[in-house]
This record gives sequence, C-alpha cells and structure tokens, in this order.
Amino acid sequence: MVCAGLAKEQGFRVLALTIDYNQRHRIELDAARVIAERVGVERHVILPLDLRQFGGSALTADIDVPKDGVGDDIPVTYVPARNLVFLSLALAWAEAAGSKDLFIGVNALDYSGYPDCRPEFVQGFEGLARIATKIGSEGGTVTVHAPLQHLKKSRIAQEAARLGLDAGQSWSCYDPLTDGRACGVCDSCRLRRAGFEEAGLNDGTRYSD
Amino acid sequence: MVCAGLAKEQGFRVLALTIDYNQRHRIELDAARVIAERVGVERHVILPLDLRQFGGSALTADIDVPKDGVGDDIPVTYVPARNLVFLSLALAWAEAAGSKDLFIGVNALDYSGYPDCRPEFVQGFEGLARIATKIGSEGGTVTVHAPLQHLKKSRIAQEAARLGLDAGQSWSCYDPLTDGRACGVCDSCRLRRAGFEEAGLNDGTRYSD
Repeated sequence: MVCAGLAKEQGFRVLALTIDYNQRHRIELDAARVIAERVGVERHVILPLDLRQFGGSALTADIDVPKDGVGDDIPVTYVPARNLVFLSLALAWAEAAGSKDLFIGVNALDYSGYPDCRPEFVQGFEGLARIATKIGSEGGTVTVHAPLQHLKKSRIAQEAARLGLDAGQSWSCYDPLTDGRACGVCDSCRLRRAGFEEAGLNDGTRYSD
Repeated sequence: MVCAGLAKEQGFRVLALTIDYNQRHRIELDAARVIAERVGVERHVILPLDLRQFGGSALTADIDVPKDGVGDDIPVTYVPARNLVFLSLALAWAEAAGSKDLFIGVNALDYSGYPDCRPEFVQGFEGLARIATKIGSEGGTVTVHAPLQHLKKSRIAQEAARLGLDAGQSWSCYDPLTDGRACGVCDSCRLRRAGFEEAGLNDGTRYSD
C-alpha cells in the first residue's frame, strides 16, 4: 500500500500486480483490491499462479505458521524463490506495457530473514533484467524501486499516515482466522504491531488475541 | 523433449514443468504431456499462468506471427521476460523439492534473436538464483543446465534419434492451424524443417504447405 502510494506521489502511472499464489492468507487479495482502488492505479491484475503445486512453505503447504516470535534464521514462511517469481512477472508486464520501472514493497531493515528481500537481490535482479529482455538488448535499463527497503516499520506506518492512506485497509497476517481476524502472533503480525506501536499510530487491525 | 531425455540419460530424476501461458500454440501442452510420459518423469506439472493478461507478443496477443523468414532482430514472437519467468518458477519448484539443478532447452546457435536464450542470460540466472534463495544463503549453488544451448538444430534432431525419442511427438510451430497441422512457414517451423533436413531425418510433422 505504501509502496504504491509513494510511486503515485513520485508521479508514476501505476500498473498494480497482485499474485494469487494460493497463499494461506488469500484474504490479502481483498485488501489489494481495495488499495488499488484507493491509490488510483491505471489497471490492477490479480494473476492466479498456484505455487501450492510446489509447496515447501508454511504459506503454500500444510506446515504450521510459527507463532513464538521472530528468529534469526530463514523461517518456514519463506516461499521458495517467491520474490524472484513476482519481480519476473512484474518485469514481463512492464516490458509489454512499455515501462522500465518496477516497484516492490520489500523491507530488509526490521527483518532480513528472507533472502529475496535483501538489497543484493533487488540489485541483482536489475542486472539480470537487462540481460533477459528486449529492453536491455536495445540499450535500456530496468530500475527496481524498493522505497521501503531501508525504512523501519514505524517509519512505514508514518508514511502511510502522511500519504493519507488507511492502515486498516492493508493486510499483514500470515495466518488469519476464519472470521477474518489477524492472529496477532505470527512474525508478520508481531512486526506490524511493534511498528505501529513505536510510531504511536493505530494499525486498524482486528486481532484475535 | 531432447533436453528432458538428456537429463534422464545423465541420471537425474526429472520433475517436468510446463507453463500454460495461454500461448497461441497451446497445442504444445498436449505434446508436453506425451513427452513427459514417454521420457518417464517423476511428476509433470502443467501450471496455468495467463501471460495474455500482459500481451506484448505475437504468441500472447492479437499480433500476426511473421511468416516471411527468419530475420536478425528480436521478433514479435518474443514474449517479454518469458524465460526469466519460466526459470524462476522452475527454481521455485526445485528449491521446494530439494533440488539445485534446473534444465532448460534453450538454443542460441541457430538463432539468437531472443535475449533470454543466450548464454549470458543462463549464467546470469545462476548467479541471481544463489542470491534469491535459501539454497544460496546456506552456501549452495544452483546449476542451470542448457544442454542444447550450443547445438545446431540438426544435431538436436540427431540426439532425439540417438535417445530413441519420436520427433513427431514434439511440437515447434507458433501458429498451428485449427486442424492441428503446423503452418510450416513461421520461424520455428523453418528452423525445425531445416534442421531435420540437414540431419537427413524425418521430423514427423504434418505441415499445411
């Protein structure tokens, strides 16, 4: 949400891509619809791509989402090569649409357990994007904007408020309850809550605990 | 087909991934099914991924497939970032399955008009795969095998015969007729025909011309 808001603020016309990868928290697709409408994107594609066929993650297989606090290792909520797949698809659409600018909302400061959220990955993708495409063959470059990469979660919360966005429209929880409440104790809930608390802002989320 | 056959010959257990990207020549999905069965893969996933949502190619939009001979430029049959998307998905499955070896049947010798068939792309992907994944974070490496990369089409035809594979089960044409015949004059048909002719082998294809 904040990443899209910043892209709009910078004057970009936004094409919004959401991947329905059959994730455990598919409820985030509803949030994406609301946000795309609110931010005012030119087109929003929700693309079905069933990564549950491959599994290998608590988000795409019958593996429990950890609830006992954020650790240092790569967690089981890591989805193999997910952000590489996401950026590749964003690049495919960008190139088809005549754009050379990608935006992704990765954040590596509060938590760098996911290899595909780190700056090295984002930079490496820019390099490969040049080699892989017609854009690069014609001498062009691809820029991957990751405006949240080095921001603390509390700062991201403040940016949402500054942009006039409603935090309650966004979704973070990996393991929502069937009644639509957030679990409150998965890594994603913990980081969200701590960030908004530090910023002194309300995150607009209904938690189950 | 030949790439999968060579992987099997080298002793690999093969997980076969076919992308149903809503391509003009979706008939190739039927060929993939037959080949996966014939080669003897452990599992074959045909993954729907509608790249027609993005368009931008004669294979994924209402753009005519060129029929007047192979040129030097990147043709309109180039699908933006397609092989990057394909390899990213193969990597996702490989990592989930505990494998570090990917195989892709790209060929850069007869025709290097597609940027995502060139050796630089394949090597660049190996590098990024290490950065993007848990495999790399744990000190592992990813190998992208492209055994057809430097082979002439005629040599690939010979390899098919040597491996006891039936060329007629494979599919090349970009623009098949509704009756299931190959057009015979798109770039892919031209390169196939010339390769088999040079090898003195029958390609088992019903052409419309």
